[in-house]
Amino acid sequence: MKPSLPSPGVSRRVLLAALAAAPALPQLLLPTTVRAQVPAAALASWNDTASRQAIVTFVQRVTGQGSPDFMPPAERIATFDNDGTLWCEHPMYVQLAFALDRVKALAPLHPEWKDTQPFKAVLEGDMKTLAESGEHGMAELVMATHAGMTTEEFQKIVTDWLATARHPRFKRAYTELAYQPMIELLAYLRANGFKTFIVSGGGVEFMRPWTERVYGVPPEQVVGSSIKTKFQMRDGEPELFRLPEVNFIDDGAGKPVGINEYIGRRPIAAFGNSDGDLEMLQWTTMTGGVRLGLIVHHTDAEREYAYDRNTPFGRLDKALDAAALNKWAVVDMKRDWKVIFPFDKH
Amino acid sequence: MKPSLPSPGVSRRVLLAALAAAPALPQLLLPTTVRAQVPAAALASWNDTASRQAIVTFVQRVTGQGSPDFMPPAERIATFDNDGTLWCEHPMYVQLAFALDRVKALAPLHPEWKDTQPFKAVLEGDMKTLAESGEHGMAELVMATHAGMTTEEFQKIVTDWLATARHPRFKRAYTELAYQPMIELLAYLRANGFKTFIVSGGGVEFMRPWTERVYGVPPEQVVGSSIKTKFQMRDGEPELFRLPEVNFIDDGAGKPVGINEYIGRRPIAAFGNSDGDLEMLQWTTMTGGVRLGLIVHHTDAEREYAYDRNTPFGRLDKALDAAALNKWAVVDMKRDWKVIFPFDKH
Repeated sequence: MKPSLPSPGVSRRVLLAALAAAPALPQLLLPTTVRAQVPAAALASWNDTASRQAIVTFVQRVTGQGSPDFMPPAERIATFDNDGTLWCEHPMYVQLAFALDRVKALAPLHPEWKDTQPFKAVLEGDMKTLAESGEHGMAELVMATHAGMTTEEFQKIVTDWLATARHPRFKRAYTELAYQPMIELLAYLRANGFKTFIVSGGGVEFMRPWTERVYGVPPEQVVGSSIKTKFQMRDGEPELFRLPEVNFIDDGAGKPVGINEYIGRRPIAAFGNSDGDLEMLQWTTMTGGVRLGLIVHHTDAEREYAYDRNTPFGRLDKALDAAALNKWAVVDMKRDWKVIFPFDKH
Repeated sequence: MKPSLPSPGVSRRVLLAALAAAPALPQLLLPTTVRAQVPAAALASWNDTASRQAIVTFVQRVTGQGSPDFMPPAERIATFDNDGTLWCEHPMYVQLAFALDRVKALAPLHPEWKDTQPFKAVLEGDMKTLAESGEHGMAELVMATHAGMTTEEFQKIVTDWLATARHPRFKRAYTELAYQPMIELLAYLRANGFKTFIVSGGGVEFMRPWTERVYGVPPEQVVGSSIKTKFQMRDGEPELFRLPEVNFIDDGAGKPVGINEYIGRRPIAAFGNSDGDLEMLQWTTMTGGVRLGLIVHHTDAEREYAYDRNTPFGRLDKALDAAALNKWAVVDMKRDWKVIFPFDKH
């Protein structure tokens, strides 16, 4: 099935620069000594195919007492891309849908937008012109909607939007469109002593307000793209104000850079779905020890979407070739997953 | 007692831009339900004065079941400055001692340094000229010693240096010069469900190789200043190469920015010792709820050093005034601490 809205065809690199406030959700705490769980129970939404077997075998090798490949819990760092790996990214990145809705909401305050691109295109629903505005247009859109407020104000805007926005095809809140098998995988890894991180091209402050609730990943374990912030006192109260200036783009070769900068350890397992994840998987797996690289391949147009080499965004091309070369697991969503979303019936 | 070497008198902001590799040490794991411990046991090196009482009272208020000020464990974020707060920063920042030693070690590869400042001053032990080289000179020193190698190579350089370098007065490894009462405080907070972070002007990759061992703080909970890195493949292997370019300065107003960017939650307790920590303590405490701000005041020239308003670096001036205004605890090291270092006798 084709995306039900035209995809703006913009570069990941430009689209996703946003950061966020400092919320507060409990970290999952585990005993120091953990054993590999029974995978059939922990990965209930995974069919018993090669992908699940690759995951289970890897976990048994690095966690088994006496295994020659044993890694101490502190080394069990697993990094996950978000869009297209943990939740649905079609027909457009959720953060782009947010930006478009914000333009519409803010338009009464900006009468000039009626005659200024790319805002005019957004207000008229002209996705073709929006796509043609390219990186520059997208950057304008992000800055107009993600900057100019405090981190706490932005967090509230994101939370409020997610509470009411609905996916155009599934008619569900976007946070319901997390992949059930990946939620199980995150929990399975944590139950085996892993610390799970999100490493996404998406804006870190767009993700942090909800990742604990949806994925069990607390804000301090979310790495993403960001804009700059400035500390200032206003009416005697300190605040962090979001500036219209890119700080960090956590995509492509930026992902290993971000992993080193924000986490400070090299992962032993990494999960992605596009060429934007290529370098993260290389950095994780191209080393001496036992490592797991996994690519989510969108093959299920009936239950979700089917796309890879020829999509204008979230493209899976080089990373698919690299998967064969490096023996990364490639999830065939149609074949490997019993259900896609939490609301699907087994 | 005056510092036993002349202090170069350089700005914190310039001195400390370095980042580091991705090592791997175990995170302390705690049960979800924790109670306030008996402080007399947990804070054995603290005298029973106002500082210890402020700490214990705060912990009891935010952790006590049924307390009106109760905070869930996920919200119990505590941030600690490093130099002068957790370990000794006199007669010079340890990272500066490292940079000076590195210049000497690298000098045979750089014959031109004999005639080039600030390297000439370093090689001749001319600290006055070094200090006069100012921010520009310090930046050159940092880039010449902290960039131009991979993150893993830098990690090894730091680790090897710390294994042999000795403090000029105490004749001890620098990692032995962590403050015993602060080590106890870190552990006490963790035992009460807090997640402890370092938020330092020092280079993040200078700290991460040893913070777990010395403080129990794992690499992913260390925030600091950094230089940029670049991902590249060399001989078919991925690496992160350290570039001579500042990425982030985690000092002053940069500290709340760094806390938001790297941690993504607002702390409820913060610990510092200089004006570089002022904004972190403001950001932490100037809010509605019960919060703890604490300043370590160096008052003990006999056992360590005595300095505050008139030191050319690590200056405690505005933050001391702000402490009175905001009711932050001020540790009088001489009066409040039974011992300073782990090797001191009770």
